[in-house]
Amino acid sequence: MRDESYPAPTNVRGAEYPRVHPDGRVTFRLYAPEAQRVQVQPGGADNGLGPSPYEMTRDAEGFWSVTIPPAVPGFHYYWLVVDGVRVNDPGSETFFGYGQQTSGIEVPEPPEVAAYYQPQDVPHGEVRARWYWAKTTGAWRRAHVYTPPDYDANPSARYPVLYLQHGAGEDERGWVTQGRMNWILDNLIAAGKAVPMIVVMDCGYTIPIATAPGGRPDMETYLRMQQAFADLLLQDVIPMVDRTYRTIADREHRAIAGLSMGAGQALYTGLTHLETFAHIGSFSGGMRQEFDPNTSYNGVFRDPAAFNARVRLFWIGTGTAEPRAYEAARTIRQAMDAIGVRYVYFESPGTAHEWLTWRRCLHDFAQRVFA
Amino acid sequence: MRDESYPAPTNVRGAEYPRVHPDGRVTFRLYAPEAQRVQVQPGGADNGLGPSPYEMTRDAEGFWSVTIPPAVPGFHYYWLVVDGVRVNDPGSETFFGYGQQTSGIEVPEPPEVAAYYQPQDVPHGEVRARWYWAKTTGAWRRAHVYTPPDYDANPSARYPVLYLQHGAGEDERGWVTQGRMNWILDNLIAAGKAVPMIVVMDCGYTIPIATAPGGRPDMETYLRMQQAFADLLLQDVIPMVDRTYRTIADREHRAIAGLSMGAGQALYTGLTHLETFAHIGSFSGGMRQEFDPNTSYNGVFRDPAAFNARVRLFWIGTGTAEPRAYEAARTIRQAMDAIGVRYVYFESPGTAHEWLTWRRCLHDFAQRVFA
Repeated sequence: MRDESYPAPTNVRGAEYPRVHPDGRVTFRLYAPEAQRVQVQPGGADNGLGPSPYEMTRDAEGFWSVTIPPAVPGFHYYWLVVDGVRVNDPGSETFFGYGQQTSGIEVPEPPEVAAYYQPQDVPHGEVRARWYWAKTTGAWRRAHVYTPPDYDANPSARYPVLYLQHGAGEDERGWVTQGRMNWILDNLIAAGKAVPMIVVMDCGYTIPIATAPGGRPDMETYLRMQQAFADLLLQDVIPMVDRTYRTIADREHRAIAGLSMGAGQALYTGLTHLETFAHIGSFSGGMRQEFDPNTSYNGVFRDPAAFNARVRLFWIGTGTAEPRAYEAARTIRQAMDAIGVRYVYFESPGTAHEWLTWRRCLHDFAQRVFA
Repeated sequence: MRDESYPAPTNVRGAEYPRVHPDGRVTFRLYAPEAQRVQVQPGGADNGLGPSPYEMTRDAEGFWSVTIPPAVPGFHYYWLVVDGVRVNDPGSETFFGYGQQTSGIEVPEPPEVAAYYQPQDVPHGEVRARWYWAKTTGAWRRAHVYTPPDYDANPSARYPVLYLQHGAGEDERGWVTQGRMNWILDNLIAAGKAVPMIVVMDCGYTIPIATAPGGRPDMETYLRMQQAFADLLLQDVIPMVDRTYRTIADREHRAIAGLSMGAGQALYTGLTHLETFAHIGSFSGGMRQEFDPNTSYNGVFRDPAAFNARVRLFWIGTGTAEPRAYEAARTIRQAMDAIGVRYVYFESPGTAHEWLTWRRCLHDFAQRVFA
């Protein structure tokens, strides 16, 4: 039988492994002649590579390998475990996740399905690293700023701004590297399906906290983080962006969205600051506390008619294969339905708490925001 | 005795190890209760952490650690070796080097010495990720483009361009992440010591080659790579840059420089294309073949007077603690002295084939280029 496997697109240059087979199986390999035990560990409980560690087997020369059953397409974090130590696969690029640099693999979808997040022969925007001093944190920070195609060519044009946040354990690099947000926007803008916009991605971690792999901050820390991020965004990031880029600096042209932890930050910052944002998106996220229409989010839902009149887009998305987020989305929807608040709901079929869900979320959200 | 050690600035957020002591000693630590042997391996023969692997010792709880003697300041690649397997330190960011993502540690210099490559309260440029289709390689590629402060604020200003290359095993991310080129330029431009310029960084790997750790391509492959890079730069990158950015698109305002492998590329591409470049810089690099004033670099040195009249800056730099590159620089200087070609020579005292040498090289080179 001919071997039609190929190096994963997330491999570093020249690396032959991991390899993806046409049916979605993946072969991992590591040279470790002195090791006693080597495993592949998919990241997270509902990872598209499967839930459990896979034992690798050693050949006579000291190469350990395993071929795993067909994976769900998309981007999956994983690591290798060598004699009990979690390590990265030298064949893969690393991606900031789980609070550290972590291996990841892209298991491709069919090209026609994947086209929306692949580079196409269309005008391309830029992703700009922008350093700034944040007075709320007392430190230099880096934001990543997507500017749409022709931003430089049209020096008098002004643009709406989407603030777009990563998830827990990740950072400002996630949406471009894992999420391919720039290609999603390039393609939508070229097709006339999204308004040309600036997208600002910053790091959601604003106070010193330990982010041990898999560790979740307690509720008190979580709420402090959420407030500190809102302070950073409102007092540092937005003024810097409006000063630095050709934005349309009003609430109608300002959106906030995020995934998972970032969804919580988008809901909190957005819903408590409707004077600043008219568009809010929650990707695989939820409300961390019991919903009370009179008190939640500073009482913004007390007058649903006023909310509906004021908010241009309230967007909730989730994958169908991520039980926690799916339930969280249902909770939000039921709460909103009960009081008559308008929202858009989106489901990504078959995807879990992973980046393919969020690429699809952004693909839908970006067509509706500022429209 | 009070412990005045602190987490290295290259650590991921929240990571307590590796830690740097005020005298430059470094303590590494890894939790690996099941491992039999764990070592710290500095990258390369003349690494500022020292030349040899350091054995770590295990405590009762399964933490392995070692404190190494005072290190040379600067950025040092390293990895851990767990039961014979080379792995990254989960506490450190990873940096693309040795053809894969590799741990790195910044051992700080005194603040007053390090100021030129630290973010200061001055106007900051941007580093822009720019995707483009390269017809010479038949693939989408990404360049990183530094635009100086006020690039957007002065939409009619035009700028000279420096093409700046990384070394073997690295990629287009190196000069910003390891080299801090953006802060070096920001600070020089703010002080009026460098001309505001655009800096373009692309990946020097243009043909498929295996880049096994430590592996060097043979001479034939090296020369094919060098030619393919020249083709890419001349036929794809420069036209794209001149089309996309507000450049001054003539040879007087175009420079090429690089480090190590990139120095070879800069010398080859620059010296054989004086119609395109008037400024050439070689950082820790050399000529890979015997120098012949009549034939080397297509005979550009046949007429030294014409060379001196045509080339605005021919710049050679090296660290004093990197014997190979130091010798290579001496060879170039002797060859140039013998025929009366004018050049600038720069030495970085005490630094090896590492990024602190190249930060210092850029700091000097940038003050002379386009001046």
